[in-house]
Amino acid sequence: MQSSVTASSGLGISGHDTLRAVQWLGDRLHLLDQRKLPFEEAWIDCHDAGEVAHAIRDLVVRGAPAIGIAAAWGVVLAAQRGDDLDAALVTLRAARPTAVNLMWALDRMRACIGGGTDAAALAREAQAIQDEDLAANRAMGAMGAGLIAPGSGVLTHCNTGSLATAGFGTALGVIRAGVASGNIARVYAGETRPWLQGARLTMWELQQDGIPATLIADSAASHLMKSGEVQWVVVGADRIAANGDTANKIGTYQLAIAAKHHGVKFMVVAPSTTVDMATAFGDDIHIELRDPLELLSHAGQRTVAENARAWNPVFDVTPHELIDALVTERGVITQPDAAKLRAVFGKPGTH
Amino acid sequence: MQSSVTASSGLGISGHDTLRAVQWLGDRLHLLDQRKLPFEEAWIDCHDAGEVAHAIRDLVVRGAPAIGIAAAWGVVLAAQRGDDLDAALVTLRAARPTAVNLMWALDRMRACIGGGTDAAALAREAQAIQDEDLAANRAMGAMGAGLIAPGSGVLTHCNTGSLATAGFGTALGVIRAGVASGNIARVYAGETRPWLQGARLTMWELQQDGIPATLIADSAASHLMKSGEVQWVVVGADRIAANGDTANKIGTYQLAIAAKHHGVKFMVVAPSTTVDMATAFGDDIHIELRDPLELLSHAGQRTVAENARAWNPVFDVTPHELIDALVTERGVITQPDAAKLRAVFGKPGTH
Repeated sequence: MQSSVTASSGLGISGHDTLRAVQWLGDRLHLLDQRKLPFEEAWIDCHDAGEVAHAIRDLVVRGAPAIGIAAAWGVVLAAQRGDDLDAALVTLRAARPTAVNLMWALDRMRACIGGGTDAAALAREAQAIQDEDLAANRAMGAMGAGLIAPGSGVLTHCNTGSLATAGFGTALGVIRAGVASGNIARVYAGETRPWLQGARLTMWELQQDGIPATLIADSAASHLMKSGEVQWVVVGADRIAANGDTANKIGTYQLAIAAKHHGVKFMVVAPSTTVDMATAFGDDIHIELRDPLELLSHAGQRTVAENARAWNPVFDVTPHELIDALVTERGVITQPDAAKLRAVFGKPGTH
Repeated sequence: MQSSVTASSGLGISGHDTLRAVQWLGDRLHLLDQRKLPFEEAWIDCHDAGEVAHAIRDLVVRGAPAIGIAAAWGVVLAAQRGDDLDAALVTLRAARPTAVNLMWALDRMRACIGGGTDAAALAREAQAIQDEDLAANRAMGAMGAGLIAPGSGVLTHCNTGSLATAGFGTALGVIRAGVASGNIARVYAGETRPWLQGARLTMWELQQDGIPATLIADSAASHLMKSGEVQWVVVGADRIAANGDTANKIGTYQLAIAAKHHGVKFMVVAPSTTVDMATAFGDDIHIELRDPLELLSHAGQRTVAENARAWNPVFDVTPHELIDALVTERGVITQPDAAKLRAVFGKPGTH
């Protein structure tokens, strides 16, 4: 991997949508290093599938859709180099366990491989995955924003924006669209411990696009809801089971419980590639446990006494009963359940 | 203020109770600087009421009972120096707004002043406040632990231990007693953003006393509760209204909502000095807003983009309907409400 620092990642895209964190440059994948934001806009170039897998595992690139897109380009790199494509698929698939988009994108690339290893055809497929994600986000943004009454406040969690997708974002796409339409008057972002995606990434991304936002501690969400400033919680997803149960960043489940308690509505926004009809229930979703050091230290500095133990699950599952609206590019499902998902996404196991 | 660093703050007190963070040395108040824990055990000496108020405001000493005790000694210092006692009382009272123990301790010292300014009599009163707090904590520890079934897991928030009181602790006193009796088999501590009292202080304090504990992100509490590992949430309080509504560290309210959702029991442990019968409802309690920089930076380093906004309320209010047991040194009140508190603590306004 090579690193470079540029003054700005802006590509001149208009309005509230100026960032692109995953860029294909013809012979390498150009990734905005999200570990260094918001103070350094460093880019990393990946030249083979192993480097892409490493970038996914190390959180250079994160966010379920962005991971899938990056992995697809990893397969293209392997094909261009004449590397073993099966080995590349295995390496990329193992990079992170929870986001189903990763598995979906790799399955689609494998199907494209077919009898040969035409790098140009694979590149067209990866580009299609990326383009479809961006189009899906724009469609979801409009539909999700339409659910929100004018003048509302919203709270989001983690980062689900251009940094986490091909661009525009899922939950942040709804926020971009809702701010543009005037439906959203106030935006709050939870800081999202331990990795601070909300504090470091969402606050920076919204600032880049001129959307005023207020940061809160994750633990302050209920106090905020009680104040009446928030009408919707809007989040993304890493995997959605066939009954609508949704795995997302740790803390999402707690927000859903608090929202229900306060009569605040709860919206999940994710492309249909996040729906995993082969997984019947949320409890069947493998939840990634990461290094306790992410909780025990900050920016390389230990914050907790030596030898202390920590438990660091980085996702949790929100049961479908707590979800008021599931927005995918195929439409809005209110009060999602197994029957409603089956009607849109097909029989379990056939998606 | 003078600073000194010692190898250990241990005083040779036996068993699971070895720390004393507020020490009167006859002519100065010796405070363990909690801003520097867990990696440096530095002590600060306060020589007058202004220095004590400064130490309270700057979180050298924190925790509602410990703040009250420190303030009482601040009045003694003023008397020893011949300073204006009324001015000292005003300065100390303004140090932090939410903890009622501070107001209570100062009211008690003012009552002791009476017609004169006998420093020795005031010192006896401050010592009595400190001794009574320790005795109350031991009594509450035994009563609270008795509510917990053998082999249970508990989750606590913030730091409510020897560092926050005269010694032994309130919620952590229940945990000390419950671990000793075997009723508590598992201890989890929420890290308590933004100041990380749980991560920095509770994990260190429990380690000092040989109590195994596991740190979690505040946002992981619901996921933990769902796993069945936790039967009780045990927390302290900064102010309890006449109807049982309880102000405590930000995030407590969210834990109470999550506990109710999962059938986990919720216990508040606080000396009767925390009960404010003059405040009818929790919503009447003034919630301290602190500097947004506490959320926007870490250890002096900025973590969030420049010019970002943050909202930093450091307490919230848990309504009494979500509290299963209120433990004070006067006994256990289950499902606390205004009538039950009146029976124990007297009429509103007369406490």
